[in-house]
Amino acid sequence: MRVMDDVHENRLLSRWAAALPRGPRPIHGIHEADAELVPLPSGGLLALTVDSVAEEIATGLYRSPYTAGRTAAVAALSDLAAAGAEPLGLLLSVGLPAENTAAVQGGVARGVAEACAEAGTHVLGGDTGASPLLTVTCMAAGHVPAEAARLRVGLRPGDRIYASGPLGLGSALAAARWLELGDVFSEADYRPPVRVAVGRALRRVASAAMDTSDGLVATLDQLARLNRVRLHVTRPLAELLHEDAARVRERAGLSAFTFLAGHHGEFELVFGVAASHEDDLDVAAAQIGWEPLELGRVEEGEGLVLGGRRVDGARVRNLLGDVNGDVAAYVRGLEALAP
Amino acid sequence: MRVMDDVHENRLLSRWAAALPRGPRPIHGIHEADAELVPLPSGGLLALTVDSVAEEIATGLYRSPYTAGRTAAVAALSDLAAAGAEPLGLLLSVGLPAENTAAVQGGVARGVAEACAEAGTHVLGGDTGASPLLTVTCMAAGHVPAEAARLRVGLRPGDRIYASGPLGLGSALAAARWLELGDVFSEADYRPPVRVAVGRALRRVASAAMDTSDGLVATLDQLARLNRVRLHVTRPLAELLHEDAARVRERAGLSAFTFLAGHHGEFELVFGVAASHEDDLDVAAAQIGWEPLELGRVEEGEGLVLGGRRVDGARVRNLLGDVNGDVAAYVRGLEALAP
Repeated sequence: MRVMDDVHENRLLSRWAAALPRGPRPIHGIHEADAELVPLPSGGLLALTVDSVAEEIATGLYRSPYTAGRTAAVAALSDLAAAGAEPLGLLLSVGLPAENTAAVQGGVARGVAEACAEAGTHVLGGDTGASPLLTVTCMAAGHVPAEAARLRVGLRPGDRIYASGPLGLGSALAAARWLELGDVFSEADYRPPVRVAVGRALRRVASAAMDTSDGLVATLDQLARLNRVRLHVTRPLAELLHEDAARVRERAGLSAFTFLAGHHGEFELVFGVAASHEDDLDVAAAQIGWEPLELGRVEEGEGLVLGGRRVDGARVRNLLGDVNGDVAAYVRGLEALAP
Repeated sequence: MRVMDDVHENRLLSRWAAALPRGPRPIHGIHEADAELVPLPSGGLLALTVDSVAEEIATGLYRSPYTAGRTAAVAALSDLAAAGAEPLGLLLSVGLPAENTAAVQGGVARGVAEACAEAGTHVLGGDTGASPLLTVTCMAAGHVPAEAARLRVGLRPGDRIYASGPLGLGSALAAARWLELGDVFSEADYRPPVRVAVGRALRRVASAAMDTSDGLVATLDQLARLNRVRLHVTRPLAELLHEDAARVRERAGLSAFTFLAGHHGEFELVFGVAASHEDDLDVAAAQIGWEPLELGRVEEGEGLVLGGRRVDGARVRNLLGDVNGDVAAYVRGLEALAP
């Protein structure tokens, strides 16, 4: 699909898909779901997903094994949540460095166990190997009735779009690390949320969903491309930031846009709700004591509108590669693209 | 379990298990199954497993991305086969180096796709990241009716023990690489088999099964510990070797034992069959045109007997760590332990 391959990461995924046939009758196309959905012989769908934390350790963004463990588990659970699936359990594949092995193993386990407890699920097993740098790969399996499964596709013009919570904590950690603002935001302040209960509550309520693992703008851009619609964020961008992210933003002297566009995300869900389901959303949110954050609306057309102006989502998403990972150039580039 | 923790690798796994509660009612204990088994809300059991190929690349044992892809997929499929599960699909998590990215990706995909085709399954999805060295993590999900699921436990004195095919190809690759015998065995000769059809045929036939991912001796040792029995390999060890492994053994001037004890395995299944099921084994084998390799029998007691003598399985399994990975010392140590 041409419109997908404008984004470099999608191109890499498409290359895998070309080399690895996906089976005779996939439930969804590539890119179209956060978790892979497979029919079970006994009924219902199996939801499977995998996420790795490795580059975050290699670049120094994460220094704590706890963060690596928690984030790997949350990333996988977040994909199940987007699909509306109930977790059946996690598998863990960990590459442990030779130094401080027991302490590193303990930190990873603490992060994973904490996320599991919040999701009401467990680690079923896994494997461990030696690795020069810590790597944590987490696979999650879940179950969802076929009629309740949710994809990234399904948005219709007129739907409202929401996030499951305030945004920008992923960028806050990156900014604190790379701009050396450790006194306003530390790695311990980055605790991405487990949104399994929200994912379950949104069954038969949300028209489509995707998690913000790569930040809000990438998520909106992917949803706009897949659904062939325009996503219009009508709310002022500063109102979308988590209060901790807002504090870092102020100290860094950067735009709210940069904090929403940075590629290190926060694992909230972005979802659409048709007008006919707005009341269901109120009921579902009240039942679990949760408050959705309204972002804007789905419109006919294509692309993104944020802060009252068109934003080139592909340029935002390709920027880090285009500047060869140079953080200062990346931040300048995002500021230049801000509406 | 004290008898399990004599083996260093088991101790590492037990440490994960202590830090990561496995849930209220696991189907089996830790160490007791090749794949983790979870009841599905819709009926039957989900079988999940994960295997990584990383150290084999880092140490130079594998140089070809094809081998990494095939072996990662076979390792995961082999765990499903041991459990008697039907594959539902694989997930792939790949760390790709910056150099020759497309060629490396293509080689990995070819190895994975080939193993999938042989197993009658598919890659459902996955994720890709950047990594200094290639890493391939493969997760497999399968389905098995509860009454057909097979564990590592269930062996009884009097059962015969079998392998699904001739052994020693993992050691053949290691010997060819480290002893520089590339003219008698190349990396392309190492193509571990897909035993999914055998695993299916052994439903309700085998009393227990485990794959030889860490070599025959480690597999027998683990089975003997878990089942609290003695495993007596009555067949002469040289008769257990694959003809290619036998050729390398001769050139290397080493014992057959060393080729069966080396920790780089070949992903065959080792399984037990009660006397009352011997006829079922003949029928099952004939149906799929496959010939099991008889190894010996299960006896009352503990430990291993190979080549007519007791073999200290824990020493074999701990040896590589005890010599700090020194290949020459490892080979000398295995030869010294040979019966």
